Amino acid sequence: MTDLAAVKAALKTQAVETPSWAYGNSGTRFKVFAQQGVPRTPQEKVADAAQVHAFTGVAPTVALHIPWDKVDDYAALAKYAEERGVKLGAINSNTFQDDDYKLGSICHPDAAVRRKAVDHLLECVDIMDATGSADLKLWFADGTNYPGQDDVRARQDRLAEGLSEVYARLGDGQRMLLEYKFFEPAFYTTDVPDWGTAYAHCLKLGEKAQVVVDTGHHAPGTNIEFIVATLLREGKLGGFDFNSRFYADDDLMVGAADPFQLFRIMYEVVRGAGFSSEVAFMLDQCHNIEAKIPAIIRSVMNVQEATAKALLVDRTALASAQVSGDVLGANAVLMDAYNTDVRPLLREVREEMGLDADPLAAYARSGWAQKIVAERVGGEQAGWGA
Amino acid sequence: MTDLAAVKAALKTQAVETPSWAYGNSGTRFKVFAQQGVPRTPQEKVADAAQVHAFTGVAPTVALHIPWDKVDDYAALAKYAEERGVKLGAINSNTFQDDDYKLGSICHPDAAVRRKAVDHLLECVDIMDATGSADLKLWFADGTNYPGQDDVRARQDRLAEGLSEVYARLGDGQRMLLEYKFFEPAFYTTDVPDWGTAYAHCLKLGEKAQVVVDTGHHAPGTNIEFIVATLLREGKLGGFDFNSRFYADDDLMVGAADPFQLFRIMYEVVRGAGFSSEVAFMLDQCHNIEAKIPAIIRSVMNVQEATAKALLVDRTALASAQVSGDVLGANAVLMDAYNTDVRPLLREVREEMGLDADPLAAYARSGWAQKIVAERVGGEQAGWGA
Amino acid sequence: MTDLAAVKAALKTQAVETPSWAYGNSGTRFKVFAQQGVPRTPQEKVADAAQVHAFTGVAPTVALHIPWDKVDDYAALAKYAEERGVKLGAINSNTFQDDDYKLGSICHPDAAVRRKAVDHLLECVDIMDATGSADLKLWFADGTNYPGQDDVRARQDRLAEGLSEVYARLGDGQRMLLEYKFFEPAFYTTDVPDWGTAYAHCLKLGEKAQVVVDTGHHAPGTNIEFIVATLLREGKLGGFDFNSRFYADDDLMVGAADPFQLFRIMYEVVRGAGFSSEVAFMLDQCHNIEAKIPAIIRSVMNVQEATAKALLVDRTALASAQVSGDVLGANAVLMDAYNTDVRPLLREVREEMGLDADPLAAYARSGWAQKIVAERVGGEQAGWGA
Amino acid sequence: MTDLAAVKAALKTQAVETPSWAYGNSGTRFKVFAQQGVPRTPQEKVADAAQVHAFTGVAPTVALHIPWDKVDDYAALAKYAEERGVKLGAINSNTFQDDDYKLGSICHPDAAVRRKAVDHLLECVDIMDATGSADLKLWFADGTNYPGQDDVRARQDRLAEGLSEVYARLGDGQRMLLEYKFFEPAFYTTDVPDWGTAYAHCLKLGEKAQVVVDTGHHAPGTNIEFIVATLLREGKLGGFDFNSRFYADDDLMVGAADPFQLFRIMYEVVRGAGFSSEVAFMLDQCHNIEAKIPAIIRSVMNVQEATAKALLVDRTALASAQVSGDVLGANAVLMDAYNTDVRPLLREVREEMGLDADPLAAYARSGWAQKIVAERVGGEQAGWGA
Repeated sequence: MTDLAAVKAALKTQAVETPSWAYGNSGTRFKVFAQQGVPRTPQEKVADAAQVHAFTGVAPTVALHIPWDKVDDYAALAKYAEERGVKLGAINSNTFQDDDYKLGSICHPDAAVRRKAVDHLLECVDIMDATGSADLKLWFADGTNYPGQDDVRARQDRLAEGLSEVYARLGDGQRMLLEYKFFEPAFYTTDVPDWGTAYAHCLKLGEKAQVVVDTGHHAPGTNIEFIVATLLREGKLGGFDFNSRFYADDDLMVGAADPFQLFRIMYEVVRGAGFSSEVAFMLDQCHNIEAKIPAIIRSVMNVQEATAKALLVDRTALASAQVSGDVLGANAVLMDAYNTDVRPLLREVREEMGLDADPLAAYARSGWAQKIVAERVGGEQAGWGA
Repeated sequence: MTDLAAVKAALKTQAVETPSWAYGNSGTRFKVFAQQGVPRTPQEKVADAAQVHAFTGVAPTVALHIPWDKVDDYAALAKYAEERGVKLGAINSNTFQDDDYKLGSICHPDAAVRRKAVDHLLECVDIMDATGSADLKLWFADGTNYPGQDDVRARQDRLAEGLSEVYARLGDGQRMLLEYKFFEPAFYTTDVPDWGTAYAHCLKLGEKAQVVVDTGHHAPGTNIEFIVATLLREGKLGGFDFNSRFYADDDLMVGAADPFQLFRIMYEVVRGAGFSSEVAFMLDQCHNIEAKIPAIIRSVMNVQEATAKALLVDRTALASAQVSGDVLGANAVLMDAYNTDVRPLLREVREEMGLDADPLAAYARSGWAQKIVAERVGGEQAGWGA
Repeated sequence: MTDLAAVKAALKTQAVETPSWAYGNSGTRFKVFAQQGVPRTPQEKVADAAQVHAFTGVAPTVALHIPWDKVDDYAALAKYAEERGVKLGAINSNTFQDDDYKLGSICHPDAAVRRKAVDHLLECVDIMDATGSADLKLWFADGTNYPGQDDVRARQDRLAEGLSEVYARLGDGQRMLLEYKFFEPAFYTTDVPDWGTAYAHCLKLGEKAQVVVDTGHHAPGTNIEFIVATLLREGKLGGFDFNSRFYADDDLMVGAADPFQLFRIMYEVVRGAGFSSEVAFMLDQCHNIEAKIPAIIRSVMNVQEATAKALLVDRTALASAQVSGDVLGANAVLMDAYNTDVRPLLREVREEMGLDADPLAAYARSGWAQKIVAERVGGEQAGWGA
Repeated sequence: MTDLAAVKAALKTQAVETPSWAYGNSGTRFKVFAQQGVPRTPQEKVADAAQVHAFTGVAPTVALHIPWDKVDDYAALAKYAEERGVKLGAINSNTFQDDDYKLGSICHPDAAVRRKAVDHLLECVDIMDATGSADLKLWFADGTNYPGQDDVRARQDRLAEGLSEVYARLGDGQRMLLEYKFFEPAFYTTDVPDWGTAYAHCLKLGEKAQVVVDTGHHAPGTNIEFIVATLLREGKLGGFDFNSRFYADDDLMVGAADPFQLFRIMYEVVRGAGFSSEVAFMLDQCHNIEAKIPAIIRSVMNVQEATAKALLVDRTALASAQVSGDVLGANAVLMDAYNTDVRPLLREVREEMGLDADPLAAYARSGWAQKIVAERVGGEQAGWGA
């Protein structure tokens, strides 16, 4: 038997961080289709993120990307956010868009480029101090396109050296979250291609270094929930970058491609950490062709639905079937939770939180979409370059 | 026993078409790293392509991409090319960069967008008439990102209708080459995801419609040479878009990721069509971080090496081992050819053609690289957008 | 709005064929774990299949595998089946377990082996005449393990020749269903690796030849519902071999690995064929570690649940959102149906059919499991070899 | 410039261990095709392995598999081997073929089964003491087929506990080599699916525990040489199980599917460890349809050819090009070595070692194949079950 009140309570405390860049334009190497009403400034991104929180109640923070979200006064930006009901979240570094980074950043063969990259990361920690952000999220586009292009092992040495310097700069209560990625934009090797590599570096760095699992950054067929369970067991799961994929790193809305997988992942989180944990839930998606704010609201709801199902798993019955070797019975306990329609439950949760039961309809009625199209005229729309 | 003179003769007649867009800037969704000396006009692209032919002797044509290579006077462009020793090759359409094409082009739910796309394709045939190009190469970015987004089957009906209109416009000696692609930029479905779909459409269209195999457009593990053999058996292999991949559609230099696979593909071509055939060899690559002209020269050489090895297969011995069920013996015959170092043979071929034995060294000595860096100052560098 | 009565009516007419071999022992190359109570004869397999139908009401036929299910008197076996409430279904050929087939069967380089294989297929048609089966299901283990081992293209010629002879033998109302498989047991090529190859052969054979989609026989990332939609559009979808996979051809219970994918597949069937069609729903699974009859009941229920959800899609709303280019709206219509808990509806359907609402519980109570363990002592348990 | 004498010297010291089970029958879940002359006893397997060493000169040890190679007197078996010119190598455990292991062995939910599995592993160390083997190679078939079947994380706890007990039993000079496998025979999770998991366990166990890289045990697209470089950097690469794959764990002859990949792997070994290292080169293959001893000779030669090419890489030129960011130049240095035909060099090496330059031809002439077919009549052929 599941305790529905406890499930509801847990769902009310869930927090999903949305990324500032998801509010801007994005696309593929073939084309970026601009959308009307897209933010032109970090402030406008924060304002959109506040809308997502206003209607879902569980998206209280917004992640920044440096330099895309550089401002002169981070305290003012933080205050701007708080006035709108949200806070600034993780600081995401960017060492892939400067011309110097063509052959890498922190792993580059040239020490001068590495210096520049590390300085950028140190600056990100400065920004964390200013914004009060707890997490530095590191993803490196570093890698090689052709066998022989660079020394794979030497690049690991450079990576370790650079990370070490940045780690030493972290203050109390600050973490370094290291992301891995199977491929892209490097096509032969990336320098942090899998959780094992990220884990090995974090282990040496120390307790403040943890691994980020981006759900789109794995080889075909990879059992992501196994990685989640393993990292939790090792005390090294820092958080998630949620999105979904059919093929490569498609960056579609989380839960859109394989909702059953998302449920299995959330089950391992519930089983391994509960919600009192330090595992950060963050979105990292692109909305190339769909309306951005509704897509992000939908994504937050998808995470909620997967979480609700995970919380509904009858763990006593499950453990009993597992221990007795009842393969079909144990699977059935899990599937019973998955097959439950949790949308009525989540509508109740929202109403109890003083929210509209249907966030998408409420957002549509709010007029925000029309307002930003009308007001955000002129200027340069935010995108991956700015 | 292989007839070396015949092998050499075949190698001298090989023709690899290079794509105008490979001379311009390219990149990933994360960043396009500009290079110095990159062409700013279709003429400059043609001039670079002429260099590749001058040093390899087997790259006599250059493919155009419309609208990237739009000019007012195609006859003048053709004359410009011929003065430099090359000819204009296939015309490649582009129905993915206009804002109208966000949800598709020829498969779009809106008839007006489909009309626009078909009109573009018809215009491409007009251009073929002007340039004397024989091949219309069609690749569609059409597809959907989310289940339910559009009606998968209705899109096939629209595709068939559009292709049919364009097919009817083809003149004598003109072909429609239909390319398939597993994914990207669409992430849930593409509308021509595999050779079967392309084949089914070409079959209904008629003899002038054939399938193009882009070596980077397959699911992991796909046996491409099987597809090549099958399409040749069906009389439906129109040609290749060569490049190589480790993961998705990486568009690395052909032969860079799996030279053994390239050899096996070329063996099926040699076995199934010989060189008197109508199978077009085209490159379709990106040179994001490496020097472009040398990368294209190298790619042409990679195709030559794979071809030379394929021609060296002792087909009598192979057939004998195959018929007798000698698994290891048959495999060994193939591997003997593959393991042969054909570079000395190709140096001889080049010298007999009046070329330098080492195209890359000769190009480096030529001063062309320095010349274009010095001369191509100002203006807008060519890229995927222009 | 969906017409619930029509949905229920459709669900009551659904028919899922279960395979005789799923009731026997199976395993991996590493180990076959025998289970107690497993059938020792075709009759006992049929008796088990009758149990599945008795409790689900939608599994009225059982597929045979020749020679595993060879009997002296097929009419008697058919009568035996009918007495237990089921009928004999498709006849499945086996040209992979005789020592002669080491290098292939119908594609073997030796004409004598090909003759033997074709004779076996002709015998299968004889058996169809005797059993009244309408479908000959052909899967070939043919292929090669090493490049060069055999001539890939010549094997296609042999395949075409063999199929042609068998096709000519088909009577009125009999179909040839040709299955494709990406790999295994052949590891370099299979001779029918993809739907395109199966389609091309069926097209030439004629109207009685159609393609079977085994849901486990695709490359990673393949969009199976696209293939389903395309084959339906071409009039060439003969049916399904249902099972599910995480990695290769895992042959797990259908719906166990990716229930959302199964739903999308069933939606394309509903959209493209309805239930009045000739698309056969067959299971083709292994139950290596779980209890077999309950696993098959569960699988039938999984197909029903996916079908119910597919039938619940509000197609009017979907078409409307699709035509208007509302990406999120169209996706939401599909997801609404998927997220519905259809188990209460199916319980009603079963009760209206005079069945227990919970087939698994009813089977467990029936005592059949205990009965077969007690009675089926001695003899040789059925497996893949017999 | 490469020092050819040093290359030759290195090649002469290379040692490739062959596995006893590769000399016996093997197959797929569909069929095991028996071959004539296959060994019936561990002694006969050792005798065959001695043939491979006699003709290649670089296969001085043979790995045993317990219980398949159980004998009463291991000292006698070791003496038998030495009389034939080879030694006994690694001891491979087997915890997947007993009926008790249906749901796992060392990770099984039932403590009694875990005890049995650990006892088997301890027995394997006893055997190591008797044979003088230095390496205990552990591969676990443990895993689950269905989500929920067992607690993924608890299985890791059980794994750690079991490994720990076995590790404590290791004597001086003995190692535990832990193998990982992406999937099969478990289809939802394996309990050691990737190098990261194996690494994390080995790290905690201590210095005697190292990771084995089986080249067939990775997800599609995985860059294996990166893993090799990383494990070497961490001091945790214990050795290789060589074989090759196109799809899943095909277990084809090493070098047969992607010789370029094998070269890249060997290059990282040469670059990271040299040949004075403790990295064990072992074959782990199946010869389902090809003659076994010649296939193993061929495989050893394939490893030699890849090694020779790796040794020929001009590392000074490579480092120079890498440091200067010359992408094409660095790649060219690597490709120059790969494109070299090293067969003449290896013929010289063999002649200098007093061997026939052509091992396969010499073996064919030796009459051993005919001899074993004539003599090994009756008894039970060795296979995966015995």
